[in-house]
Amino acid sequence: MPKALVYVTYKAGVLDPQGEAVRGALSSLGFKGVNDVRVGKYIEIEIDDTGNIHDDLERMCHDLLANPVIEDYRIEMADESTNGERQ
Amino acid sequence: MPKALVYVTYKAGVLDPQGEAVRGALSSLGFKGVNDVRVGKYIEIEIDDTGNIHDDLERMCHDLLANPVIEDYRIEMADESTNGERQ
Repeated sequence: MPKALVYVTYKAGVLDPQGEAVRGALSSLGFKGVNDVRVGKYIEIEIDDTGNIHDDLERMCHDLLANPVIEDYRIEMADESTNGERQ
Repeated sequence: MPKALVYVTYKAGVLDPQGEAVRGALSSLGFKGVNDVRVGKYIEIEIDDTGNIHDDLERMCHDLLANPVIEDYRIEMADESTNGERQ
């Protein structure tokens, strides 16, 4: 079954408070040299092959998974041969 | 500057309520054939090259970014040549 990987990230210039918090926490834990942290979403979607997957995924991202005003998204299809890696 | 990409996902078998909610919402929006959705985190870290990046990233994931009891993580280094893609 096809598996889509969706990456949702804040657009450049949009403040990322969660990323800032992580950066501060890493610094408190003693990690030096961490200059910037951005936290986004990583979504795996197992979907039947209806022949129209790419259009569907595009609409899913636009309508539900991302906020296109402040977020970018990127869609990849998982390589079937490596699907078992995390199963 | 090196940029690390960290993917944090629930281990197989761990209930993912957020993924379930997304699956239900996609179904409500009329998307057919969505069988499973898993939501994880995608973290971009810009870090100075101290010569010890990989060990540091491993510890960051283990100590802060992921909960190793229920989550898996994967670390990749971004290809410098494609770094500009999302800047």
